[in-house]
Amino acid sequence: MLTRIDHVGIACRNLEATAEFYEATFGLRVVSRETNAEQGVREAMLVVGQPGAVGQAGASYVQLLEPLGPETPVGRFLERRGEGIHHVGYGVTDINAALAAIGATGVRLLDSRPRHGSMGASIAFLHPADVGGVLTELVQPAGS
Amino acid sequence: MLTRIDHVGIACRNLEATAEFYEATFGLRVVSRETNAEQGVREAMLVVGQPGAVGQAGASYVQLLEPLGPETPVGRFLERRGEGIHHVGYGVTDINAALAAIGATGVRLLDSRPRHGSMGASIAFLHPADVGGVLTELVQPAGS
Repeated sequence: MLTRIDHVGIACRNLEATAEFYEATFGLRVVSRETNAEQGVREAMLVVGQPGAVGQAGASYVQLLEPLGPETPVGRFLERRGEGIHHVGYGVTDINAALAAIGATGVRLLDSRPRHGSMGASIAFLHPADVGGVLTELVQPAGS
Repeated sequence: MLTRIDHVGIACRNLEATAEFYEATFGLRVVSRETNAEQGVREAMLVVGQPGAVGQAGASYVQLLEPLGPETPVGRFLERRGEGIHHVGYGVTDINAALAAIGATGVRLLDSRPRHGSMGASIAFLHPADVGGVLTELVQPAGS
């Protein structure tokens, strides 16, 4: 069901400084920037390896997340835990089928229907309390 | 420098139950089990996608970690933060070159020399305080 690790989502206080750090330290490259008002974040996607694979189903990313304000999910995460890994996103080929199958096992879905994610992907989150404390995201890339 | 997301390391209290959960819920498969006394953990590696790629440079894994006792790094993590994502590991082709380059930027290395990791890999950790709160691991797979 899970095709790959699509991305690791990292909460930070300063998106520009953190993106520059990842570029300078690890040689990663920002390939997309978006503001997602619904989720209350500004974000940058940095591709890991294979720069030719950007936007394709096989690429993996570091997703940096800066909250739009303190009363957002990522703002509350920063207040409670500080900067660090916020969630993991796995690739799927059919997000509706994946949600139905996972929901049937009893795992609660934070999103019962897919919504808009980075770079045109369809995404949905699972309840971390039902996944061993891990905020888990399913990602069906655009065009797949 | 970073070739891919090698794995996401997840701290759990019960390795067997958590591995069974990942197998039943997400269809992942345990491909390796090890006890790493030096790191104070029992672990299971579950391959994400491409089962044919196990052990090859392109595969990605969920790494489940159960501490051998409360006075271990993962034991202290569980006590402080509960179950959840513990670290992220990125693939590199030459871990000594990567450590030299990263160390030269001022990021502190928890391991100045590579040590033994899962499935015969050479690994090293970077100081999370210098990587925006993210415990970051470099992984040079066995045979690469």
